[in-house]
Amino acid sequence: MNFRLILNIMGYTLWVEAGCLLLPLLVSAGYGEACWEPFLWTLGLCSLCGLILTRIPARKNRLQGRDGYAVVAMAWIVLCLFGAVPYVLSGAVPHYADALFETASGLTTTGATILTDVEAMPRGILFWRALTQWMGGMGVLVLFLALMPRTGAGAVHLMRAESPGPIKSKLLPHVSDTAKVLYGIYIGLTAAEIVALCLAGMDFYEAVLHSFSTISTGGFSTRNASIAAFGSPAITWIVAIFMFLSGINFSLIFISLRGHIRAALHSEELRLYTLLTLGSIGLIAASLMVQQSVPLGRALKDSVFNAVSTVTTTGFATADFAQWPVFGQMLLVILMFTGACAGSTSGGIKVSRILLLGKLLHREIKKILHPKHISVITVDGQLVEDRVVSSAAAYMVAYMILLLGGATLLAWDNLGFTESFTAVLTCLGNVGPGLGRLGPAGNFSPFSGFSKVVMSLLMLLGRLELMPILVMLSPRMWRER
Amino acid sequence: MNFRLILNIMGYTLWVEAGCLLLPLLVSAGYGEACWEPFLWTLGLCSLCGLILTRIPARKNRLQGRDGYAVVAMAWIVLCLFGAVPYVLSGAVPHYADALFETASGLTTTGATILTDVEAMPRGILFWRALTQWMGGMGVLVLFLALMPRTGAGAVHLMRAESPGPIKSKLLPHVSDTAKVLYGIYIGLTAAEIVALCLAGMDFYEAVLHSFSTISTGGFSTRNASIAAFGSPAITWIVAIFMFLSGINFSLIFISLRGHIRAALHSEELRLYTLLTLGSIGLIAASLMVQQSVPLGRALKDSVFNAVSTVTTTGFATADFAQWPVFGQMLLVILMFTGACAGSTSGGIKVSRILLLGKLLHREIKKILHPKHISVITVDGQLVEDRVVSSAAAYMVAYMILLLGGATLLAWDNLGFTESFTAVLTCLGNVGPGLGRLGPAGNFSPFSGFSKVVMSLLMLLGRLELMPILVMLSPRMWRER
Repeated sequence: MNFRLILNIMGYTLWVEAGCLLLPLLVSAGYGEACWEPFLWTLGLCSLCGLILTRIPARKNRLQGRDGYAVVAMAWIVLCLFGAVPYVLSGAVPHYADALFETASGLTTTGATILTDVEAMPRGILFWRALTQWMGGMGVLVLFLALMPRTGAGAVHLMRAESPGPIKSKLLPHVSDTAKVLYGIYIGLTAAEIVALCLAGMDFYEAVLHSFSTISTGGFSTRNASIAAFGSPAITWIVAIFMFLSGINFSLIFISLRGHIRAALHSEELRLYTLLTLGSIGLIAASLMVQQSVPLGRALKDSVFNAVSTVTTTGFATADFAQWPVFGQMLLVILMFTGACAGSTSGGIKVSRILLLGKLLHREIKKILHPKHISVITVDGQLVEDRVVSSAAAYMVAYMILLLGGATLLAWDNLGFTESFTAVLTCLGNVGPGLGRLGPAGNFSPFSGFSKVVMSLLMLLGRLELMPILVMLSPRMWRER
Repeated sequence: MNFRLILNIMGYTLWVEAGCLLLPLLVSAGYGEACWEPFLWTLGLCSLCGLILTRIPARKNRLQGRDGYAVVAMAWIVLCLFGAVPYVLSGAVPHYADALFETASGLTTTGATILTDVEAMPRGILFWRALTQWMGGMGVLVLFLALMPRTGAGAVHLMRAESPGPIKSKLLPHVSDTAKVLYGIYIGLTAAEIVALCLAGMDFYEAVLHSFSTISTGGFSTRNASIAAFGSPAITWIVAIFMFLSGINFSLIFISLRGHIRAALHSEELRLYTLLTLGSIGLIAASLMVQQSVPLGRALKDSVFNAVSTVTTTGFATADFAQWPVFGQMLLVILMFTGACAGSTSGGIKVSRILLLGKLLHREIKKILHPKHISVITVDGQLVEDRVVSSAAAYMVAYMILLLGGATLLAWDNLGFTESFTAVLTCLGNVGPGLGRLGPAGNFSPFSGFSKVVMSLLMLLGRLELMPILVMLSPRMWRER
């Protein structure tokens, strides 16, 4: 392992963070808020530490696969640790554990919050909070690769470790070109939503922040009542549409933009994602109408918005679904598990893994029916190697272990079974709200400091798709050279 | 598919049930209770239907693998449907859906009950209730194979479909000999517990019923307060020890009885089972002492008994763990997931599958660290084929789908997230009690008739390890010949 090179990369990561901190600094200064100072201090701190780390002489060694995983894990931890500083320095979030939770929640695009009154926060702080999501949505190291084209052959390992999904396809031969295309789509979607929200009557500042939250599938809002606060059907539908788009594999969007819409529509993952979303919407609407006598129009609006928000793991809300019938809540729990498509900014297990695992089960049943047939697993007409399927199975096992283990750790706070379980589910899936006291009307402040650190780690595990953090925590990684 | 042969086997199954019904008939008559009549009617019904079905002329065809699965699934459904009749005819359980739930709960050794006052039931009914567990624990078709040695080469498929665990090993070359050995151990353990409980002061009738419940890991008691009602430390410890023994793979017990104790103790599954049990006991005791100020002695007794009861999926209780700190409850939830060893009478996913899946995850992490190494999965020094590992993974996938799907169906009754989720977990894992209102102090009567039928099916799915029922429900099974 090339420790010095890793430290260099940490340095560059801090420079990227320093660059990002410039934006909330300007916003604060522009609105004449006092919190420009904490941003300046943090910016200085990041730049200085970055300078020291990048100056460490390192052999120009290639990054190996496992180093890529460890680098990504460490870079994200560094980003969280430094990103939490402005919250504490500005006094917006007095305790560091809370600030760390809020930063990890932003960077991992979870959108869970410990703030009890969002509207009382300075605009600069809310901007930083929204921006962390946008940074994390597409990946900070992907940005770094897009900006610095000559990182050598090891770059592909960084990209593989940071981007989600079981099957990693390079869109273009060069990693830096792929990174540029991804960021191009990302910026395009964000800009389109800003324009749409402004046209629907939202002011520019809030339109920017909500677009950051939507396209990254984060879910932080500037209002305590989330999207419901605007009371505008146009805004609700615009956000719902952009959430759904952000849940689609970006390579399908890329293919569509190149004119191959028909090919994109044939994607099995996209079809399952759409089916899952529409099915949940129908069932939730039916439950609201039958079990709570909600009129059709409102039932449909609430079920569409909140189901799409949950399946894309955004976490915006237009209704307090913790008050829904249990049937609707259970459907949301299923959506929290699955998440949306791989290669999107959403979290969860990802629909493509669910698809692979469903096909694994189907093959198993076929094997009993026809023991002598040999059947292979295909997706979109392409053979999927057994290696990929067993990797998806291992992913699910790790997910379950973390879910149950994490829930046990949080349970020590004695907040109830529903709260402990859904807190871990929502953190690991990068969703945002949970059920019970963690619903859209509640927040995560009742947890202890220890639990908040655990949840921050779970959010990172979920965002980086477990393996980088598990590899980094593996003693074998550090024992061997 | 050989439909006529299948109908024949259903007929023999009904004869086995008729034979079993003779026992509660005699018990009722012996205690002078009126409910001997319903048992007689049901016995007659089973014999008659059995006679008709066995008289259907069938070619002496061999059973194929998939037919074995379907036969086992159908036989168990038939056993449940007929076994519920005495409850209704005697008036003990007026609704058929309730009676079906109670019978399925017994046969699958779940031990969940819809009865609100067990102590008000006639002794004959309680005897039948306990006996269904004992019949189901080792398997009705295994009994049938033990009794009728000449069922031909297809018998191995029946046994494979009915007995639990990912790796099916024949103890002895002949299926009927293996079945005899298994029943020998089963009867031996039951007899030993009856003697021990009588020596500890329990009366003979209750000792028999509780031994049926313990060795089958069922959990039905003759008392409303379960084992706590006896207030005797000796009884508590005897039941705990026999529960733990019933959670061990019977082939290890067989090996030990043949003098190879050292080899049995080296089993990785046994070690993980012991570790899991001891770990949970320690953590639960700590939680009770720290979070509820329970004194050491009582904390240890409660944690040992209830953790062992849960991991073996028995479901007896000496404390209302629904009132424990959430930390302890969450540990019980983990134990409900895992269950005890394959090849025992316990339910859950089984420790051997957990072991295989854990090794799959470990291999995945090793692959990232050393991409060029080839690593294989071994258990007890033996290579495990990839086929077996992917079958365990498919099992977990099916388990998760049934868990979330079942919880969604039950959620329609609006009993709360905790109740819906743990009801399915406890039914699928054949445990017995759940959390919240389904804890040891509660029961399953608040659910609707539809939910009770769903739960009965889930219990059957869990007991038969999913595949027989999934194969039977697969349209492909019926379309093709």
